[in-house]
Amino acid sequence: GVLGSGDFARSLAVRLVRSGFRVVVGSRNPKRKASLFPAAAEVTFQAEAVKKADVIFVAIFREHYSTLCDLADVLVGKILVDVSNNTEINHHKESNAEYLASLFPACTVVKAFNVVSAWTLQSGARDGNKQVLICSNNQEAKHTIAEIAQVMGFTPVDMGCMSSACEIENIPLRLLPAWKIPIFLALGLFLCFFTYNLIRQVIHPYIREQKNKLYKIPIEVVNTTLPCVSYVMLSLVYLPGVLAACSQLYYGTKYRRFPDWLDQWLQHRKQIGLLSFFCAALHAVYSLCLPMRRSHRYLLIETAVKQAMEKKMTIWVEEEVWRMEIYISVGIIALGLLSLLAITSLPSIANSLNWREFSFIQ
Amino acid sequence: GVLGSGDFARSLAVRLVRSGFRVVVGSRNPKRKASLFPAAAEVTFQAEAVKKADVIFVAIFREHYSTLCDLADVLVGKILVDVSNNTEINHHKESNAEYLASLFPACTVVKAFNVVSAWTLQSGARDGNKQVLICSNNQEAKHTIAEIAQVMGFTPVDMGCMSSACEIENIPLRLLPAWKIPIFLALGLFLCFFTYNLIRQVIHPYIREQKNKLYKIPIEVVNTTLPCVSYVMLSLVYLPGVLAACSQLYYGTKYRRFPDWLDQWLQHRKQIGLLSFFCAALHAVYSLCLPMRRSHRYLLIETAVKQAMEKKMTIWVEEEVWRMEIYISVGIIALGLLSLLAITSLPSIANSLNWREFSFIQ
Amino acid sequence: GVLGSGDFARSLAVRLVRSGFRVVVGSRNPKRKASLFPAAAEVTFQAEAVKKADVIFVAIFREHYSTLCDLADVLVGKILVDVSNNTEINHHKESNAEYLASLFPACTVVKAFNVVSAWTLQSGARDGNKQVLICSNNQEAKHTIAEIAQVMGFTPVDMGCMSSACEIENIPLRLLPAWKIPIFLALGLFLCFFTYNLIRQVIHPYIREQKNKLYKIPIEVVNTTLPCVSYVMLSLVYLPGVLAACSQLYYGTKYRRFPDWLDQWLQHRKQIGLLSFFCAALHAVYSLCLPMRRSHRYLLIETAVKQAMEKKMTIWVEEEVWRMEIYISVGIIALGLLSLLAITSLPSIANSLNWREFSFIQ
Repeated sequence: GVLGSGDFARSLAVRLVRSGFRVVVGSRNPKRKASLFPAAAEVTFQAEAVKKADVIFVAIFREHYSTLCDLADVLVGKILVDVSNNTEINHHKESNAEYLASLFPACTVVKAFNVVSAWTLQSGARDGNKQVLICSNNQEAKHTIAEIAQVMGFTPVDMGCMSSACEIENIPLRLLPAWKIPIFLALGLFLCFFTYNLIRQVIHPYIREQKNKLYKIPIEVVNTTLPCVSYVMLSLVYLPGVLAACSQLYYGTKYRRFPDWLDQWLQHRKQIGLLSFFCAALHAVYSLCLPMRRSHRYLLIETAVKQAMEKKMTIWVEEEVWRMEIYISVGIIALGLLSLLAITSLPSIANSLNWREFSFIQ
Repeated sequence: GVLGSGDFARSLAVRLVRSGFRVVVGSRNPKRKASLFPAAAEVTFQAEAVKKADVIFVAIFREHYSTLCDLADVLVGKILVDVSNNTEINHHKESNAEYLASLFPACTVVKAFNVVSAWTLQSGARDGNKQVLICSNNQEAKHTIAEIAQVMGFTPVDMGCMSSACEIENIPLRLLPAWKIPIFLALGLFLCFFTYNLIRQVIHPYIREQKNKLYKIPIEVVNTTLPCVSYVMLSLVYLPGVLAACSQLYYGTKYRRFPDWLDQWLQHRKQIGLLSFFCAALHAVYSLCLPMRRSHRYLLIETAVKQAMEKKMTIWVEEEVWRMEIYISVGIIALGLLSLLAITSLPSIANSLNWREFSFIQ
Repeated sequence: GVLGSGDFARSLAVRLVRSGFRVVVGSRNPKRKASLFPAAAEVTFQAEAVKKADVIFVAIFREHYSTLCDLADVLVGKILVDVSNNTEINHHKESNAEYLASLFPACTVVKAFNVVSAWTLQSGARDGNKQVLICSNNQEAKHTIAEIAQVMGFTPVDMGCMSSACEIENIPLRLLPAWKIPIFLALGLFLCFFTYNLIRQVIHPYIREQKNKLYKIPIEVVNTTLPCVSYVMLSLVYLPGVLAACSQLYYGTKYRRFPDWLDQWLQHRKQIGLLSFFCAALHAVYSLCLPMRRSHRYLLIETAVKQAMEKKMTIWVEEEVWRMEIYISVGIIALGLLSLLAITSLPSIANSLNWREFSFIQ
């Protein structure tokens, strides 16, 4: 059974019908709404629909939950599936599912399907996340809904009892919250170092010697900026651990909570580290592209021609050769090690490591 | 208990014995077959074996299920595990497990272990997929089999009720079905563009100016072909979304099924996108290798020598310098963004994103 | 309820309190220990604590389990959670959890939380592995503990019945056991080939022609060593399969166990293959860096100048050009294929392939 006639209710009915379920839709104007639903779904009055179904998807807004109170008698003993979402994180004090459960104490309420979009329901779980998070205080009802989700082509994930409902309702509103601060940090650092390098490599030679080095902006200036950003970000990964240890030594206990800013910082270490790796990898690619450029080719030929005209055979500078060889080989080793760290932060790899192995690699 | 004496039955008995279970094998010729099984497994007549065991693995072909009907009395109340596979996808109207359940209504039938090969059973779950997909209408029987799979070193995955049996039976017959069309598409595009570039860069200069440029075939011609393929594939990822939107606007509804060809196309977008990324990445590696080649070195030296003999100091062409700098830096940024897309298509990453985040990144 | 006042007990109490549970701690000196626990946790005598709680975390050493025997009466019917770890793999004959269960047959024992560190408990599951492996012979008790783990921010994983306890207790003691032999093998091979290449490329020219080629050590010698290591490792991946097939042919049966050394070797193939890929990838990066070096630039200019002074226009050697073009293009294709193999060994990708697909790709 599906209660409601909005976008989600219609998509849900479409998917249920296509997955081979018998669907009955409850509406207050069944005649007007019938055309919106697939032909195989029976559209009838709410009370009728509830009587015919054991599992009822409540696809209406939280604000209208109270309108269902008239149906309280026929709803007794049914499984109500709360599929609702909020528009803001922690909008209401209690989650929608818990509110529904408090309105209908004689029903079994299950929170599910809210992490799935109406589009995914219509088109079938194609790419991206196929998981449907389910929670309920009733094990059996949870199992029933999990099997329905399975048949519909989704991967049910048991999220425990009703107290997880709030967390599940907040998930679809999330937009990479852990990445916001690290990304702005990286952009800020990039801007600072870029300006500095621009002045140093382009503007200064132009003012002092009238040399036009503007062509350096897209690659060379960016390429000297990236490792600076990468280094600072990498140090920001390890600094909070040191600060945390200091705070523990100062207070003489491990069991005291860290101040909020330090706690936030500790929680963002993984993202800061991955951005540091991303900058380092980009720096490697930019550096490898240097000899491909026309400017590199022209400068090389110019030097050769000058050298030939001056009849100077040898230009070998041992110190410069060594500096470059060591710089490159240390760079490759550092990138190789950072890659290993980045790979272990993939969820499926991290889940196969115990904490001893994880901290060993870190 | 294991019924059957084929390859799978023997491997199953081997693994069960090694995992510490007491195994009894039911055969029609126990004397002749006993030597085939490990010494620790008791080989006896079918009826005997069934009486001694609570969980019975039916390791015989679907065609011979009916021969078990004589055992119907002793089988009452036992758990039958259907481990069979078909030779063709959707060969029979109902799945083997459902057919077995219809023959023995007094038994609890569980579908399991069919996704595991006899080789994996013998040697233990080493690499690759360790999952055993399990489905049954009986929760308790499913739990029992899941725990047996766990002890045998596999990862049991609950696939819901018996209606999933058909899907589970089709899995081992699958050979990357979603990749077939995209790979042939990529090969076809590669061949077309390769021929065009071969004519343009090698055959045409040879006919017109008698210049031998054959050395360009392995790297330069391939390297100009790859980005063409990559671009066309990338556009094929975004085109069906536009067509789908047009079709929705034309019919004035979101709830109408798309035509089959468009639906197929929408479902292959991820694979087409990954192949586009693969071509782009190969193009990057090929381009980075260009300055490593002997031919590059010789051409550079020849130009320098020519220049020196003509006493011409300057060969700097500002426009060419800029074109190359911008081309390379845009290329790196595009590859970086495509890499992020490719990383989010890893199942373990995709499962940690909600659809809002997923579509944001896309 | 938490029994014990060590580091783990305190961290557990901190996390439980922060997750909203009512916690009662049982100690033999409640007055002296009370200050160690968070204010919200009630610290009392052991018998008191046990009476007040339904779920009791036993956070004391295995050696002291017998001291709890006085509490046997009040413990009847409670769920005991064994969180203990050993200091050595397979230290005791039976696992700690099974030992606890044998001491208190009237209790339900669940093994859980031992894979989590005290630090992770205090600071919340941040990065790395969030899984809590749970096993028990009682389904309901397992569910209860799984839901507690969920609320605490961990991902409960059902590991089946009590016989898995031993395996779960060994997990935190593991330190990449499958990697030890392959890594030492790779280091040994690297050392051998490095010495050979050092003698050939640096020491020999120095002794014979007094040429100082020391600058070649950090990049060129390493770069010629890496592909040798990679090739030998790759052949070591495929060799044991051939040996296994020979052994099967020799003995005329597939069901005989392989000798231990071959079995070990077969089990390490994945790790050897990944190290081979790692060496190949490093070789690619090193090779791409070659034209970036000063020494490359100087040698190029020197050749050009020499050429110009001898008025020799042409230095094109068709054979060398072709050798390099083919070498590079075959190298890129090999690296591309190895990358595909490496990607399919990611757990989340391997889990989405059936064994037919997996062996097809291999």
